[in-house]
Amino acid sequence: MTFINKKIILTHYAEGLPRLDNFSTTQEVMEDCPENNVVIRNHFVSADPAQKGWMSGVTNYAHAPLGETMRALGVGEIIVSRMKDYQVGEFVTGWFGWQEYAHAGTEQIIRKVNPAQAPLQTALGVLGINGLTAYIVLNDILSPKKDETLLVSSAAGTVGSIVGQLAKNKGCRVVGLTGNDQKVALACSEFGYDSVINYQTSGLTEALKKACPNGIDTYFDNVAGEISDSVFPLMNVAGRIAQVGTASIASWHPLPHGPRRERLILTRELHHQGFVIFNHEHRFAEALNHLSAMITAGSLKYREEIYEGLEQAPHALLSLYEGSNTGKTLIRLI
Amino acid sequence: MTFINKKIILTHYAEGLPRLDNFSTTQEVMEDCPENNVVIRNHFVSADPAQKGWMSGVTNYAHAPLGETMRALGVGEIIVSRMKDYQVGEFVTGWFGWQEYAHAGTEQIIRKVNPAQAPLQTALGVLGINGLTAYIVLNDILSPKKDETLLVSSAAGTVGSIVGQLAKNKGCRVVGLTGNDQKVALACSEFGYDSVINYQTSGLTEALKKACPNGIDTYFDNVAGEISDSVFPLMNVAGRIAQVGTASIASWHPLPHGPRRERLILTRELHHQGFVIFNHEHRFAEALNHLSAMITAGSLKYREEIYEGLEQAPHALLSLYEGSNTGKTLIRLI
Repeated sequence: MTFINKKIILTHYAEGLPRLDNFSTTQEVMEDCPENNVVIRNHFVSADPAQKGWMSGVTNYAHAPLGETMRALGVGEIIVSRMKDYQVGEFVTGWFGWQEYAHAGTEQIIRKVNPAQAPLQTALGVLGINGLTAYIVLNDILSPKKDETLLVSSAAGTVGSIVGQLAKNKGCRVVGLTGNDQKVALACSEFGYDSVINYQTSGLTEALKKACPNGIDTYFDNVAGEISDSVFPLMNVAGRIAQVGTASIASWHPLPHGPRRERLILTRELHHQGFVIFNHEHRFAEALNHLSAMITAGSLKYREEIYEGLEQAPHALLSLYEGSNTGKTLIRLI
Repeated sequence: MTFINKKIILTHYAEGLPRLDNFSTTQEVMEDCPENNVVIRNHFVSADPAQKGWMSGVTNYAHAPLGETMRALGVGEIIVSRMKDYQVGEFVTGWFGWQEYAHAGTEQIIRKVNPAQAPLQTALGVLGINGLTAYIVLNDILSPKKDETLLVSSAAGTVGSIVGQLAKNKGCRVVGLTGNDQKVALACSEFGYDSVINYQTSGLTEALKKACPNGIDTYFDNVAGEISDSVFPLMNVAGRIAQVGTASIASWHPLPHGPRRERLILTRELHHQGFVIFNHEHRFAEALNHLSAMITAGSLKYREEIYEGLEQAPHALLSLYEGSNTGKTLIRLI
């Protein structure tokens, strides 16, 4: 079988925010499936904030090579198999890129997906890196206790929305930060937050003090920068901070400056720890069991924003940085 | 019994570095020993870098009140006892202040000291907060493994000199930073360091890369600031950084700025954790056992700089910030 494969190529590294002209669309006849590989037909591919880091052309934990298909997660059906234990007709998620068809072996495939258990595209969101990140950071880094105060930046985002619900189940006071009033309302009404602050309003420190009368014990930080500068002085002794994203910083080159935190870290005995989901595969099974059970029980809410057609992928990515999204941003190919 | 007690009073908060005119000397007749207290005759009192933070008049983990005896650690003999289990003639260490005599109860006394086991003043240094800090941070926060690279700033200091020897025993590659060539030589010849860099020489990053060819796994940071800005980019994935001091920053008011570290913390999954010795009393017994055994075996080296007479205490404190010290700075009263 041969396939005409449409794909989106990374043609230029991004300086700061991604732009449409970082990409081009192309088509090519796909080569034969190599041994120990499968051919996947992507049903959905993902647009994730982390892609900005991968396509920046500078050192990062992962890298999107220039001139090749844009690095991205996808979920699709196996249509050719030359790989043991993987059958045609099964669904898998993994590193399939922004393209219609992908060759994939053990390095690219993350796991099989059962579309009867939950909608296929949840493998890229609530049962993918977003849900896994929320669960693993919460349990392995922040370990919030009952009645402690947990603060989450990007509270209405794909990760923050799950963190809120999981932390509420643990009996925490859950406080969020987000960028507009629509998201404030959403995080409170749908995602379990006790209190949410629009960080664009003035007086952030005062608003945080009011929302966190007992201080902040744990901070799930997706944004970094000036917003977090307001949070650090309110952390309690032995507080834990997980650095999961840095969304408020448009570019790290040259390195932006900010107030030094060493004295607060010392005197409050804070723990500030970074997190990259792909280093935690040994925790995926437990996390997926927990999250799948919540989905089945209807007790985990999530939202999706679906773009139609592969060509929309760069637009979908750019939309992440406009701050208007209120759900997992996906591109549907079929 | 009545005693004329000479004491050094904190008369003005310090802005930045301590100065002689922050203090005054006074004498007063000591009141009778209250019930559940002892009277201690101080043999040695201590000058510690942490005193700068206590006397800064702003929020810190501990505070030296204005108009009262300067907060300090001391070691001395019990000369009056109205306290169960504490006998006249026994020696104790604790929060006795810069004064000749002190009233002390369970809140001030840290532990009894056996002068037959080690020289009395070691209770303020290698068997006091310096040794305890070195042992507990190394074992509980940094947990260096055999063949890992450990970097220590202030390598020849009262804490760093012990860290070097303890880490060498664990089979680490131990690299130090210090401020002059005399201390470089001392740290290498006496304190077990494999390589020590004078951070005042140009090309610190290159020197660090050369001394740490496999990157840096753990960083015992006593200095913070620009020196540490050169260290963070060389940390390996899952590296641990203990913030134990901030000696390179003269004042935290207003907050100094520096390059943001969030992206490095995230992508390298670094752990940055603060440490205040007084929150770790449950670990003192194990640490003291370990350090005392090394002292008894003659396998732990340490240096002392002893000032004679209580009036020298402010001079002793100021000397800590001149960078010329190469040992525990103590004031001998008897």
